[in-house]
Amino acid sequence: MEIQIAVAKVNKYAVSESGDTLEVVERPTGGVSVVLADGQTSGRGAKAVSQLVVRKVIGLLAEGVRDGAAARAASDALFADKAGKVTCTLNINPVPVFICRGEEIDSHSEDSISLGTSRNLRPVITEIGLEVGLTIVIFTDGISHAGERRGQPMNVGETIRSIIEDPTPQQLADALLAHAISLDDNRPADDISVLVLKVSARTGDNIRRMSVRLPING
Amino acid sequence: MEIQIAVAKVNKYAVSESGDTLEVVERPTGGVSVVLADGQTSGRGAKAVSQLVVRKVIGLLAEGVRDGAAARAASDALFADKAGKVTCTLNINPVPVFICRGEEIDSHSEDSISLGTSRNLRPVITEIGLEVGLTIVIFTDGISHAGERRGQPMNVGETIRSIIEDPTPQQLADALLAHAISLDDNRPADDISVLVLKVSARTGDNIRRMSVRLPING
Repeated sequence: MEIQIAVAKVNKYAVSESGDTLEVVERPTGGVSVVLADGQTSGRGAKAVSQLVVRKVIGLLAEGVRDGAAARAASDALFADKAGKVTCTLNINPVPVFICRGEEIDSHSEDSISLGTSRNLRPVITEIGLEVGLTIVIFTDGISHAGERRGQPMNVGETIRSIIEDPTPQQLADALLAHAISLDDNRPADDISVLVLKVSARTGDNIRRMSVRLPING
Repeated sequence: MEIQIAVAKVNKYAVSESGDTLEVVERPTGGVSVVLADGQTSGRGAKAVSQLVVRKVIGLLAEGVRDGAAARAASDALFADKAGKVTCTLNINPVPVFICRGEEIDSHSEDSISLGTSRNLRPVITEIGLEVGLTIVIFTDGISHAGERRGQPMNVGETIRSIIEDPTPQQLADALLAHAISLDDNRPADDISVLVLKVSARTGDNIRRMSVRLPING
């Protein structure tokens, strides 16, 4: 089998720093973890919060700590640092929001509580076996809130369904992000991150590949 | 401007784990760091070593520690852990081996010492300003040693020059890796990782993208 992961990420309009932080880290026992956090508010403050959370989580995962324990540790660290005044959402590996298997698209929306709100926070953990054809789509709430400003909230399930058959993960992530940005009149109302993970039959070689595209000012 | 980073990575023939570890991590003050380590020998032991080093480095970089200090810390940690018996090479951000600007290809080969060999190791630090057209190619020594088994060592500069004009970073990384593997008769004599970083004029949108392709067994 082969796992493909694609990310597309944009800042809130006219804000130079994204409050979303996403890292992919290799686990010492094999495999990789994808960690996505969305710090409360936007800009530099939000960035600091989501980086604190992600740094804590990837540091622990890289040492072999389990997802749940890493998430709890990050929540405790944030609560200790900000005394419950700042929250952050967190997905590891990922807490799926949409799970697609062929035609079937399930939405996973168990209530979970933002990090940093209290002591003894418990993460929601869902385990899904890897199988060919599985696609998982997660995103920060910039997607969920896209279009709200003009009363046309985004229907993520519909949008996934409307996208050309068998898209690559990057095509799917790009299309979801583009649709959200258009619903926000090309001025994203929030930082938006979309992550798509797809399991397919091995078609190619044995080579791991990664590519990153980073627009910078200047 | 826009920075594109591409990685291609393969294991030593018939070894299930790569001793090379590569992570890309966001710096708290902006930008990203690419950290590449090659643990001594191959397989599980080498993986543990390169992961120890990379974990240390990305943890510190994510906290805002400078490259040089992070590299020294990683070397000290490895020396403390393995009492000087295990070494590891390390590139951050990256210590370039080949720097291309248009037609011009420079090789950077200042002697630097592997981590973990002694106390007070000093990293070689080279700073290069970002400019459009700059391409940096780094790799682990699986590339440098490719073809040695049959007395046809790889000429990396020549290979870069021979690759189609203006390749994407992924094309360049893939082509270098493919050439190395062919020189090793399709049975890589060592773990091989190639990383290409390219600075181009901004052509597209404001969106950060990342994609990862991970072949797995099963």
